[in-house]
Amino acid sequence: MPNKNPNITELEKKCQELRDFIIEHVAQNGGHLGATLGVIELTVALHKAFVFLGTEQSDKLVWDVGHQAYAHKILTNRKDNFHTIRKQNGLSGFPSIKESKFDDFGTGHSSTSISAILGMAVASQFSHNQIIKNRWHIAVIGDGAFTAGLPFEALNNIQNNTENGIKPNILIILNDNEMSIDKNVGTLKNHFKELSKQKWTKELNENFIIPSIFELFEGNFHGSIDGHNLEILLDFFEELKQNTEKNLYTNKVHFLHIKTVKGKGIIKNIEKENNQEIESKHNSWHAPANFDTKTGELLKSENSIHKKSFFKFQDIFGKTIIQLAKQNPKIIAITPAMASGSSLLEMQKFFPNRVFDVGIAEQHAVTFSAGLATQNMLPFCVIYSSFLQRSYDQIIHDVCIQELKVIFCIDRAGLVGADGATHQGVYDIAFLRAIPNLILAAPMDEIEFQNLLFSAQLDKNKTSFAIRYPRGEGFLIENNSKNKEELDNQDKFEEIKIGKARVLKEINKETKIVLLSYGIVGNFAKEAIEFLEKDKIAHYDMRFCKPLDETILHQIMGFQNVKHIITIEDGSKIGGFGNAIVEFLSEYNYLKNLDSIKNLGIPDQIIPHGSQQEQYIFCKINTKSIINTIIKII
Amino acid sequence: MPNKNPNITELEKKCQELRDFIIEHVAQNGGHLGATLGVIELTVALHKAFVFLGTEQSDKLVWDVGHQAYAHKILTNRKDNFHTIRKQNGLSGFPSIKESKFDDFGTGHSSTSISAILGMAVASQFSHNQIIKNRWHIAVIGDGAFTAGLPFEALNNIQNNTENGIKPNILIILNDNEMSIDKNVGTLKNHFKELSKQKWTKELNENFIIPSIFELFEGNFHGSIDGHNLEILLDFFEELKQNTEKNLYTNKVHFLHIKTVKGKGIIKNIEKENNQEIESKHNSWHAPANFDTKTGELLKSENSIHKKSFFKFQDIFGKTIIQLAKQNPKIIAITPAMASGSSLLEMQKFFPNRVFDVGIAEQHAVTFSAGLATQNMLPFCVIYSSFLQRSYDQIIHDVCIQELKVIFCIDRAGLVGADGATHQGVYDIAFLRAIPNLILAAPMDEIEFQNLLFSAQLDKNKTSFAIRYPRGEGFLIENNSKNKEELDNQDKFEEIKIGKARVLKEINKETKIVLLSYGIVGNFAKEAIEFLEKDKIAHYDMRFCKPLDETILHQIMGFQNVKHIITIEDGSKIGGFGNAIVEFLSEYNYLKNLDSIKNLGIPDQIIPHGSQQEQYIFCKINTKSIINTIIKII
Repeated sequence: MPNKNPNITELEKKCQELRDFIIEHVAQNGGHLGATLGVIELTVALHKAFVFLGTEQSDKLVWDVGHQAYAHKILTNRKDNFHTIRKQNGLSGFPSIKESKFDDFGTGHSSTSISAILGMAVASQFSHNQIIKNRWHIAVIGDGAFTAGLPFEALNNIQNNTENGIKPNILIILNDNEMSIDKNVGTLKNHFKELSKQKWTKELNENFIIPSIFELFEGNFHGSIDGHNLEILLDFFEELKQNTEKNLYTNKVHFLHIKTVKGKGIIKNIEKENNQEIESKHNSWHAPANFDTKTGELLKSENSIHKKSFFKFQDIFGKTIIQLAKQNPKIIAITPAMASGSSLLEMQKFFPNRVFDVGIAEQHAVTFSAGLATQNMLPFCVIYSSFLQRSYDQIIHDVCIQELKVIFCIDRAGLVGADGATHQGVYDIAFLRAIPNLILAAPMDEIEFQNLLFSAQLDKNKTSFAIRYPRGEGFLIENNSKNKEELDNQDKFEEIKIGKARVLKEINKETKIVLLSYGIVGNFAKEAIEFLEKDKIAHYDMRFCKPLDETILHQIMGFQNVKHIITIEDGSKIGGFGNAIVEFLSEYNYLKNLDSIKNLGIPDQIIPHGSQQEQYIFCKINTKSIINTIIKII
Repeated sequence: MPNKNPNITELEKKCQELRDFIIEHVAQNGGHLGATLGVIELTVALHKAFVFLGTEQSDKLVWDVGHQAYAHKILTNRKDNFHTIRKQNGLSGFPSIKESKFDDFGTGHSSTSISAILGMAVASQFSHNQIIKNRWHIAVIGDGAFTAGLPFEALNNIQNNTENGIKPNILIILNDNEMSIDKNVGTLKNHFKELSKQKWTKELNENFIIPSIFELFEGNFHGSIDGHNLEILLDFFEELKQNTEKNLYTNKVHFLHIKTVKGKGIIKNIEKENNQEIESKHNSWHAPANFDTKTGELLKSENSIHKKSFFKFQDIFGKTIIQLAKQNPKIIAITPAMASGSSLLEMQKFFPNRVFDVGIAEQHAVTFSAGLATQNMLPFCVIYSSFLQRSYDQIIHDVCIQELKVIFCIDRAGLVGADGATHQGVYDIAFLRAIPNLILAAPMDEIEFQNLLFSAQLDKNKTSFAIRYPRGEGFLIENNSKNKEELDNQDKFEEIKIGKARVLKEINKETKIVLLSYGIVGNFAKEAIEFLEKDKIAHYDMRFCKPLDETILHQIMGFQNVKHIITIEDGSKIGGFGNAIVEFLSEYNYLKNLDSIKNLGIPDQIIPHGSQQEQYIFCKINTKSIINTIIKII
């Protein structure tokens, strides 16, 4: 072998530095790790081969999903602030056009990059500046992201002509690590595997035996390339640019297939990143909390806001659905690539044929569930709140219009903490509430959560049922005497009647203020009332946003001294639970009796990253803010 | 050639009868025509070859988009009621599981069929009944529907294993007519064209030179077949079933490519359905109003509810966007396969490079618009309200979180008439209102519509702007003296300040009732007030649902005699414009001053098909209902 190009050696050193820096940081602070470590060499090579200055003339670069972009951030003036990433007022964990001119597009949800880069590419052709017309438009997209439909919608349009038929330079890099968060699913990954058998070299290219799916979309396919080999990456980019300048391509859309290892280099003393033991840890490395950089051992996070609780809502979900599935053979679980995040791995072991990981495909997840429901199966469709936005039409059109019964388990509902703006689960109450034939519920604590899941599948009505629950730890241990063992062995459930609220603090003739809470923020309300030791405040855990417990509301309004209603929720104030209460009060003409109605919830603005606790404070729905609200009224 | 099988001759006769019956009916009553006429032979062949009895044991059949299903409806006990199709209390224009046990899945929006059939297929494998396990699961999906991402999400999962690895029988029929409503777009159609060069025959199959995209998803690809040739269709189905019974396929997922002519046989005296002249008429045949069965000439519809107006809102949109695009070179129009429906064909002629038909790809339409917006282009993203549900996440994640400026032109907002439940544009106010950084507006008439479009692009703020407008004819001619010529030549626009309402009937010290309307229903409110000749009612055309004109609302509430607020909108009452008003009144503590607030709008139920006028009555937002509401208050 010839001696290595000294420039390459230099760049490899840079990669090692980046890798060490990022691992060191994430080990201490948490964050998305695996994706970024897989593209260190790609990032360095792109920055070497292309021009990213944040100007209109510069090449454009979109990182799909965006958690691949840590190295890109560090290389674009953000190294000194990198310790603030995902923290309040710090750098975002994702690219953000508001944060930096070097970020061409904000990406947090998967699979948007090709559509976005195509928009930029088309725009370039309307410029009169030849440099802009000739700039490159590059999207880096994972094989996991290709399980979504959106990239195919974009691919079908990527040859769109623009002014005078001159086409922009487009490069789509398929970053194939055979992973989503968990192992990637579906048949397309097999095709990618086939493709990877062919290697791109400087000497041999464009000469393939296996036709790639990208050629069906009439692009030039190049690959595959070892995405950790800087030299060959740079060779490829060089040749691509030279051939483009020489006008050697009739078609200016290019696809490059690179193979990478997610989490590459995470454990320094283990050589083969792709061995079995390491693979099995991959999903813990997607976005680990603190860990030991030597062994990869995860350390217990100290950042949780409710240290005394034993379970996350996700744990409760995971164990409850197994219990229910044991009793009810109709239950099927569906997850769009979030089997680990939504705690379905355990059920997958118990019932390997009753858990369907459909890939990052929220639309399909819902319509597939609808298909199951037509045949009297009982699908539990488990989707994060912010990702459920992707299946809005399917919920309306395929489920609720047809009055099919699907149980929507809305994970990560409410404020999600460090992932920030793109992942806030704050719209679901508002966007679901307008849909007919859909029950909306939210538990205040772990036991209520179990009972709602139980009641949803028990309900004989053919009405779909959505249960929203938050990211993270529960509230139960803090707030009552249930101990871990009891909760752990809990397999008896209590039926909650649809639309039935729960009294937490009884109303009486002296009551002036009634606090109506929906979901886990009820715990903050409870704390606030306990702190104030006020007898004149009643508190109801409404549990259902739709249908509302109108019986209890009528009872409440029958008390003549009630002059103030406070509602609280961890969803958008606009269109949310508070709105539902005001609607009720307006419809039955109770408004005249009241001196004020105060709706607490998420204000009409984008809520940035920070800890969940910081976000509760920001939105004024933490305990102290509730206390202040009550004091102001009194 | 051998003599024709007498059974085939019999079936051909049946096809001709079906075709005549459907043409005759649609010529008189309107409806979706082209799609159904293209699948007459397929429908008859499917019904001959498979078992559709509406029982669990029967084969399952999903018609994508659903307007292909007229012949299927006629063959399944609905011939006698066929004259009621799309009419109030009559048959739905789409398959409906509530209407008939022979409809396995309701389909109105495109591209859902593979996901749905996969759900049914998976369910079959949980049965203990061998007949159910062996039943067929068939989806018929057009090439246009393949421009959406959802089918790819489903394809990637179609090999999903079920219990014990036994796989269900699945047949996906690609009904390739090279059309969406307009001509199909994108590169995939070229691939389908290539595929069609190879013909399936009994003797030769499974032996192709061109690999199909379906084989990448590991299915058995068969085709192509002339979809109007009953004999070969039946041969294929026979062979498929026989080989399946003999266990000759290792993989039980099958794809069949058939070529059909949309609108086949529509004009009896023209032989070649695929000649150029006919092709160019295809989009008028998608869902024509009354027409002459001899010449295909469209007749003027007599069903409109506002006969005196000269323009549809769609016409106004089509001519206004051209005017604006002439003045503003940044304007680009984007449509997801609705260039004709949204009146963009004229702009396409003027500015062929500034109109992008991206296919049935609402997600991509929005993210592509976002990409354009990052480069300071001004995308007018034109999407029907009910289809906008498909791009909800993209509106939040790719546009509003990033504060990019996209003008959303929400066509077919409100009640849409004969298309019914699946196409009602009644949720957009509710689902958009919760999103920060988004202005929501709705015009009451054609001139206001023009001015809103003008003002949206003028606005220098980087805030996205959504304008909703209804299907069908305008209100202007009826309601004031503007004549056609004046409106036709209108190319001067007036700026409407963001969030500024319009006074229609001034408030005074005697005013007891204030009517606040949003959008075209303001015309009904105006009529109602004129009918009552009441001086004590004020009326405001609010124009903006977000931001509200708080100045005017504070002024109104400053009048001490105002005791009743009525809001009216043609959107969901839950979470809608009326909600926004109640929120305002609650926030500023005006509720105590009022005796009642009445929100008129779409109730919390699925609104079935009928005429628009019938639907306004059903929802109690027609003129007469408003009169009754006011009378009740007085």
